[in-house]
Amino acid sequence: MSLPACWSKPLPAPDAHYAQQALARQNVLTKPRGSLGRLEQVAIQLAGLQATDHPGVDPARISVFAGDHGVCREGVSAYPQAVTAQMIANFAQGGAAISVLARQLGAFLEVVNLGTVGEVPDRPGIRQEPIAACTANLMTENALSEAQLETALTSGDQAAARASEAGCRLFIGGEMGIGNTTSATAMACALLDQDPGVLTGPGTGLDEKGVEHKRAVIRQALARHGSKRGPLHDPLQVLTSLGGFEIAGLVGAILGCASRRIPVLVDGFIVSVAALVAVRQQPTLRDWLIFAHQSAEPGHQTVLAAMDATPLLQLGMRLGEGSGAAVALPLLHSACALHNGMASFADAGVSEKTSE
Amino acid sequence: MSLPACWSKPLPAPDAHYAQQALARQNVLTKPRGSLGRLEQVAIQLAGLQATDHPGVDPARISVFAGDHGVCREGVSAYPQAVTAQMIANFAQGGAAISVLARQLGAFLEVVNLGTVGEVPDRPGIRQEPIAACTANLMTENALSEAQLETALTSGDQAAARASEAGCRLFIGGEMGIGNTTSATAMACALLDQDPGVLTGPGTGLDEKGVEHKRAVIRQALARHGSKRGPLHDPLQVLTSLGGFEIAGLVGAILGCASRRIPVLVDGFIVSVAALVAVRQQPTLRDWLIFAHQSAEPGHQTVLAAMDATPLLQLGMRLGEGSGAAVALPLLHSACALHNGMASFADAGVSEKTSE
Repeated sequence: MSLPACWSKPLPAPDAHYAQQALARQNVLTKPRGSLGRLEQVAIQLAGLQATDHPGVDPARISVFAGDHGVCREGVSAYPQAVTAQMIANFAQGGAAISVLARQLGAFLEVVNLGTVGEVPDRPGIRQEPIAACTANLMTENALSEAQLETALTSGDQAAARASEAGCRLFIGGEMGIGNTTSATAMACALLDQDPGVLTGPGTGLDEKGVEHKRAVIRQALARHGSKRGPLHDPLQVLTSLGGFEIAGLVGAILGCASRRIPVLVDGFIVSVAALVAVRQQPTLRDWLIFAHQSAEPGHQTVLAAMDATPLLQLGMRLGEGSGAAVALPLLHSACALHNGMASFADAGVSEKTSE
Repeated sequence: MSLPACWSKPLPAPDAHYAQQALARQNVLTKPRGSLGRLEQVAIQLAGLQATDHPGVDPARISVFAGDHGVCREGVSAYPQAVTAQMIANFAQGGAAISVLARQLGAFLEVVNLGTVGEVPDRPGIRQEPIAACTANLMTENALSEAQLETALTSGDQAAARASEAGCRLFIGGEMGIGNTTSATAMACALLDQDPGVLTGPGTGLDEKGVEHKRAVIRQALARHGSKRGPLHDPLQVLTSLGGFEIAGLVGAILGCASRRIPVLVDGFIVSVAALVAVRQQPTLRDWLIFAHQSAEPGHQTVLAAMDATPLLQLGMRLGEGSGAAVALPLLHSACALHNGMASFADAGVSEKTSE
């Protein structure tokens, strides 16, 4: 296989000097030490990742990867498969949640169509990079061929290259693909040795009977792909067996961003599973990730815990598209504005703490 | 006593028609129902409060109330009392956290000086409305006289009147006052029949010995002011016995905003205690409150629970100044932008859910 360089080339490390300097600065700003909580930690992390004394997240860039799933023929989603292509059009027309948020936040938005069953119109903002109409049915066969996986990873890496060329300081990956919580849940179960009884959730809105059926489909898929030589842990094997075009695209984009020193703000369940695959491939990737929100999808908590991640927001969101990350983006704006803009005790003539 | 009208005049009710219409709109936007979680609820709440089909939070307005506390002579704070006045100057100079956030968010910021021991310079952005150099020592006497309380409540109500005249669509109250977690904790203990052993915390950064001393001071204050006729529950009595100028100002501002149909985004521990006093005086006030964040101060959780409040953010912040509310403000921006800007299934030609 010919994989993008980010797949195996060692990732850059955060800059300890700038992180240390940022911590020292936080400790002299006119506030009790630590009183900005997570916002201080995030500013320090970004200073180290961006190797700067002036961390920032403008311009931010959102790439939404879209693709259809063969497993949909098993009836695992509350929505018809046509919605994937329809929503791509909606993204480009500006009517979807992520479109509204990108506009509001001044973030660049692109949609990468990696293959849908429905027809996707040619519109500005949509990149047409279809691999096939949809993946194969992961319940009965490998979802992706090795060649398809290579193409999807490369598409993601190219999105990271575009982000880098545009001078992007923070990357958000989003996804759209009817059926993709089935794929992502199966992947998480394989990587984390979990039973689908625990991780399977309603996705876009299955009722309890629907969730039970989805669980059975995932259980069959895991039995089908589980190796007789041991558990299904290899990132490439998990992606080909159970993945999706858009999920593989996200894996490539996340690794590609880190390889180019661009921090990644990780969205919800699907993107977190892509991040987990990428972290399993390259454990030092974890440094480059900031986790945006805790999804209502029940499997998300387990996936986050596996990466020792505490997300910034818990708002009960479960939409995907990168929307949870976009909603969290202003917290990073605030963290950076405070870090860069506050006065020190000395500058402001404010007395320091009486006793330490 | 001559109290502002908002103290006892019935508050307006949210508009059920607009709230209902907002719920109906949320249910046809291009997303699974409920998938934006808390953001949907907040948009619906704002539509009802603002009686509009186009909820919004611009312009938002921040009034920071400041005042000094007589109880500081008991050594209850990690910082010297001079910091209150110094920080007021820092607010106006733009170097404090709330100043940076107000700039970043495009929110109007004013500081209302209700009385400090240190000298406060005359600067644009500072309103000089001093009541006295500081409150009396709540451990041994009433913190405020009835006349002082009346003045402070009226100052708060006037801030609400200015917000209304400026066409403000959302109000944030902030506070600055060395020693005010002692006052607020004592008030919360009185109102909620709680022991200071549970609610007392480090404030700006006391060590465990300091917290133990603060606890003892609060315990003595509660013993001093507890009525032989029963627990100290009356809002006016709690405010005169244990309050602060800035806390009373906040109570007046919060009630004054609700009386003028302006929703209030409630900051952390101190502002939540002010909100609790106001809710005890006028229970229907609760409808007008959106809770911004869960402070690291341990008493906050109990105060929030007493108002059945789940805040939007849990970032471990404990700075005050209104900073937690300011950090949460972009979530309301996003909630409103999504509500107003997303396409419906019909408009976007996206298929709806297959089965309900």
